[in-house]
Amino acid sequence: MADKKRILSGMRPTGPLHLGNLHGALENWIDMQERYDCFFFIADWHALTSNYEHPEKIPDYVKQMMIDWLSVGLSPEKSTLFVQSHIKEHAELFLLLAMITPVPWLERVPTYKDQIVQLAGKDLSTYGFLGYPLLQAADIIIYKADGVPVGVDQVPHVEITREIARRFNYLYREIFPEPQAILTETSKILGWDRRKMSKSYDNAIYLSDSPEEIMEKVSKFVTDPARKLKSDPGNPDICNVFDFHKLYSPKETVDEIRHQCRSAQIGCVACKKKMAKNLIAFLEPIREKRAYYEKRPELLAEIILTGGNKARESAQRTMEEVRAAMSI
Amino acid sequence: MADKKRILSGMRPTGPLHLGNLHGALENWIDMQERYDCFFFIADWHALTSNYEHPEKIPDYVKQMMIDWLSVGLSPEKSTLFVQSHIKEHAELFLLLAMITPVPWLERVPTYKDQIVQLAGKDLSTYGFLGYPLLQAADIIIYKADGVPVGVDQVPHVEITREIARRFNYLYREIFPEPQAILTETSKILGWDRRKMSKSYDNAIYLSDSPEEIMEKVSKFVTDPARKLKSDPGNPDICNVFDFHKLYSPKETVDEIRHQCRSAQIGCVACKKKMAKNLIAFLEPIREKRAYYEKRPELLAEIILTGGNKARESAQRTMEEVRAAMSI
Repeated sequence: MADKKRILSGMRPTGPLHLGNLHGALENWIDMQERYDCFFFIADWHALTSNYEHPEKIPDYVKQMMIDWLSVGLSPEKSTLFVQSHIKEHAELFLLLAMITPVPWLERVPTYKDQIVQLAGKDLSTYGFLGYPLLQAADIIIYKADGVPVGVDQVPHVEITREIARRFNYLYREIFPEPQAILTETSKILGWDRRKMSKSYDNAIYLSDSPEEIMEKVSKFVTDPARKLKSDPGNPDICNVFDFHKLYSPKETVDEIRHQCRSAQIGCVACKKKMAKNLIAFLEPIREKRAYYEKRPELLAEIILTGGNKARESAQRTMEEVRAAMSI
Repeated sequence: MADKKRILSGMRPTGPLHLGNLHGALENWIDMQERYDCFFFIADWHALTSNYEHPEKIPDYVKQMMIDWLSVGLSPEKSTLFVQSHIKEHAELFLLLAMITPVPWLERVPTYKDQIVQLAGKDLSTYGFLGYPLLQAADIIIYKADGVPVGVDQVPHVEITREIARRFNYLYREIFPEPQAILTETSKILGWDRRKMSKSYDNAIYLSDSPEEIMEKVSKFVTDPARKLKSDPGNPDICNVFDFHKLYSPKETVDEIRHQCRSAQIGCVACKKKMAKNLIAFLEPIREKRAYYEKRPELLAEIILTGGNKARESAQRTMEEVRAAMSI
């Protein structure tokens, strides 16, 4: 373990995970846990930054997220899986780093203004929202992470984390490594409306969807808009259903569908049904594992507790160094 | 205890306490601890807001401040005396309140711009400095304090505390009482240079000064500037040494000095010596108690630990309510 580099990443519990999350961050994490000492956390305090007025659902989202993680193959034996708010040391480090972090550093993080625009209608002029990247910096450096897998939009957050770590090291003592951003390609998977798959667009297929829900959602998929009748030949290259076939159907089926679509031998309804069946089959083992954990709340609680204890131990060690360095 | 109103106040450990602190806040606190359930804390995290670059002296200042408090008569039996950074729950509540506190509320606190001007030369554009009143709000409401004894300049801090408590109660659940500001008259005692006695003017007589130091400082006192020779009659009404006589000398001495000064029967040197002797005698019991605690570091540590435990218990109870209310 000791010679493995440490990786840290987190997700905000804002709802169930979908195929975009799976093919984006999660598959990457599952791959990383074989090679790195991984810390993955559910960022429930962060969920409050943009949703402080209605936090009622957060506890259930946290539970469901951990079930999703375990069901896709994140392993509590290989990685440290935990919930942010269980490690109070993040809040203490956040407060201490606040003392040395210039406000302009936070104001110029590009996601700050972006998010304010994106989430227009919510009142986000809060001190906590401004401090979002600072809390993230505390999350990362409290575990002395070497690397942080992030999408390209999150790179500035890792950059400010490096700046804050550097400033701390300069003012007090060399405690924190400067974490590297590890670029994760974001999934290009689209929702049924052909927009990026996203919770906020309400166009997503969730890991927890039942076969019936998947069938229903797939039936709504937008296909080649030029193909009006079954007798018109289709263009699979611009069809989202065909992209899904490429992900979830066997190679032979993909080749067959390509041919049948171009030659108008298969209609969109039948093509969608085939794809839905394969997608349902692909998700079957995840659905089974979800059911397994759903039925064992004590096991789930135990996993969350154990991961939290492992994380806390590491965070406490860092905080002892931090307090000594800051004479506090 | 339960029917007594709860009072909370704190001091930043920025150096030893002086006569101005004694006749200002401390005598008021000593009086209050007979009538209220008092929580008094040493605000070491707050000391970082304006002094993050040189925190090395904070641990000693904390220790000396607790010795000062105990020596002037604050009692660990009557009051809960503790150190802020020992109660990590303050940091957690600070983080949670950050989520609901608009940045403009913090920007418009009058002391914010004042302090930036006063402490020019220090880089105070930090996120922690901006959040100073928010941390103070957390300090206060985590103990559900009913009242906060403050100087007039601190009233806006209690006001923003009330606003934040109100906002929390409105968004989630009625947990926090809105604390009242209890105005404390600030001491009008002057330093040897006739400016307000203050650490930053380097004109103060400290509770921990030795008799020799007091003699030396008193000898530098500025007296009636119109009195050039011993044979000139003086005007005690504008003499700082005479103000000190009124505080520390017996009534007969005060009357005698008034007469002798006006009639040029006593010179300033002799007058100062008399005053210094009485001041030294006044501080004698405090000095003795200071020596007592200086010699018993384990006792001091024990008092700090016990006070911290009492405070933590109360803070933890509040945090359980807060977490439940915020679903976190």
